[in-house]
Amino acid sequence: MHGYTLVQPACPVKLNQNECPFDVPDEIKREVLDEAMGRNWGRYPDFVPTEVKTRLGERHGLGPDHILVGNGSNELIQATFLAAVGRGDRVVLSVPTFTVYALMNTVMDGDLCQVLLKEGLTFDVDRLAEEGAKPGTKLVILCSPNNPTGSMITPEEVARIATTATGLVVVDEAYFEFCGVSSIGLLEHFSNVIITRTFSKALGAAGLRLGYLMAHPDLVQEIEKVKLPYNVNLISLIAAKRIIQEQALIEERSAFICSERQRVFDQLEAISGIRPYPSYANFILFEVDRSVHAIFQWLIEQGVLIRDVSRYPMLDKAMRVTIGTREENEAFLESLREVVRIVE
Amino acid sequence: MHGYTLVQPACPVKLNQNECPFDVPDEIKREVLDEAMGRNWGRYPDFVPTEVKTRLGERHGLGPDHILVGNGSNELIQATFLAAVGRGDRVVLSVPTFTVYALMNTVMDGDLCQVLLKEGLTFDVDRLAEEGAKPGTKLVILCSPNNPTGSMITPEEVARIATTATGLVVVDEAYFEFCGVSSIGLLEHFSNVIITRTFSKALGAAGLRLGYLMAHPDLVQEIEKVKLPYNVNLISLIAAKRIIQEQALIEERSAFICSERQRVFDQLEAISGIRPYPSYANFILFEVDRSVHAIFQWLIEQGVLIRDVSRYPMLDKAMRVTIGTREENEAFLESLREVVRIVE
Repeated sequence: MHGYTLVQPACPVKLNQNECPFDVPDEIKREVLDEAMGRNWGRYPDFVPTEVKTRLGERHGLGPDHILVGNGSNELIQATFLAAVGRGDRVVLSVPTFTVYALMNTVMDGDLCQVLLKEGLTFDVDRLAEEGAKPGTKLVILCSPNNPTGSMITPEEVARIATTATGLVVVDEAYFEFCGVSSIGLLEHFSNVIITRTFSKALGAAGLRLGYLMAHPDLVQEIEKVKLPYNVNLISLIAAKRIIQEQALIEERSAFICSERQRVFDQLEAISGIRPYPSYANFILFEVDRSVHAIFQWLIEQGVLIRDVSRYPMLDKAMRVTIGTREENEAFLESLREVVRIVE
Repeated sequence: MHGYTLVQPACPVKLNQNECPFDVPDEIKREVLDEAMGRNWGRYPDFVPTEVKTRLGERHGLGPDHILVGNGSNELIQATFLAAVGRGDRVVLSVPTFTVYALMNTVMDGDLCQVLLKEGLTFDVDRLAEEGAKPGTKLVILCSPNNPTGSMITPEEVARIATTATGLVVVDEAYFEFCGVSSIGLLEHFSNVIITRTFSKALGAAGLRLGYLMAHPDLVQEIEKVKLPYNVNLISLIAAKRIIQEQALIEERSAFICSERQRVFDQLEAISGIRPYPSYANFILFEVDRSVHAIFQWLIEQGVLIRDVSRYPMLDKAMRVTIGTREENEAFLESLREVVRIVE
């Protein structure tokens, strides 16, 4: 099999990983590091990070028993695979999507069923429901907003899929804060729905590797059994409980990204030969009417790194750009305008 | 299945997790945190932590392509399971040993073959070689020094097993520094041998979740494919490269633990009804001639937390105590002397 790889030339404008363009504020970093200084690094973290689970739960109106904390949300999605999928079990993915899900499936030797997005890159809810209801299906994974397309699935649509699903339905809401639409309300009614969230996007802490999962306590318990003990280090746990207090800052930054997303979208639409897709995330997918590879390389020459996603199904003419600071977005747009003049 | 659980009442003397009794020195913590302060937490860690891999490699006379860095060595052993073991594949364990290996096997639906230690709790090399050579065996896992017994397997014995093994041979050397005997020299000759090490024991950084794996570069590459991307956070990576420079401190602390181990062993031997086993690790396994559970509970009453390992195969009369500071060891010994007078 092929692993997940990333070629990443050093560029002053880095818009390729859907990161937050703003660092965690210095005063928060200092508080976290001061607390870390006072702790004994020689001791394992708490077996269950109860305080972080409680605070995350409170944020969503859930008890701590609904929450699992992970070394990034990927770890928790992998744990879900480990708990649910064995050789030959069916796994349904809406594609194109984040490539790591399919890699996890390969590792577990699952039988992958890929449901293509519809034209316009929206979720094909009918087919997802149909495939998810087939016997032997252990997992349906939906990324909403979807990476790399920016598409969104509504809670009503997720509910339709979950109602007839023979297994679990994971909704990876890594980009939730740029969208505001969540399936979290389904947890009350569906014991087979799992929601994952991350600190790596709107919460601006990709470097700390923090994610969490929300589900029915019985399901949480099953996934917890396969998750490795002590999966999150003590400093990231300190940071987690501090960062989630900054609700106002998170909202303000997300609102800024959303407003920049609109501006960048409008500017992209105005460039001849460029077709951006509406996005509910902190990135925009756009199609170009010439060589994706050439444009990607020329942008790098101009110091702008975005993502070439042309190897994804349906996306052979597409690239993905993360929304950054106003200056970064301007640098990208200017370079792109320049580049489309150069590239045939 | 049952998960890995740990009941951990708060006790002033904590000798239950084989941790290092000394914290990372303040000046090193400060350096690490200063560097962390200057970094952007919003960015993902490097896709490949080249600097840490290079420094770890240098420590062992290996190139960086021989190394994988993990969120604790457990993560890398799990990745090895993911890469090597599918439903029904044979996995050979020397038991009793660290329980997490068997849990990983359950998750992968492997066919577990447990080879008991011999009397005196030494490795049964003949049977391990025999079982490892059987068709369909994908993995042999040896923990040396072995948790919870303290037993050791020599590189010559590992070589015997690896020579005829049909799959991979993992030697988990988490406790290496208290023993000094390693199978690392085998890496030159065996492309199926994997050595894992940790920062959680002698290196005194259990809270940071750091481990690494050493193997032939081709094997490293295969395991890297199944390992999740960005598995170690940026602060732990900074700490890793700083802590491994402290070779003299690590050796001094390990020497202290080894000398305390001898002292505690001698003292345990002198207590009537207590039978300690020789150990190459930072803990001692001992058998008691009365109720393990009662002794364990009474020690907690006295403020001393050790590990009840009586549910492990062969160990129904056994407990495990971590070697701590001199004061902690004294508190343990005194309490134990007291307790054996109380418990029938």
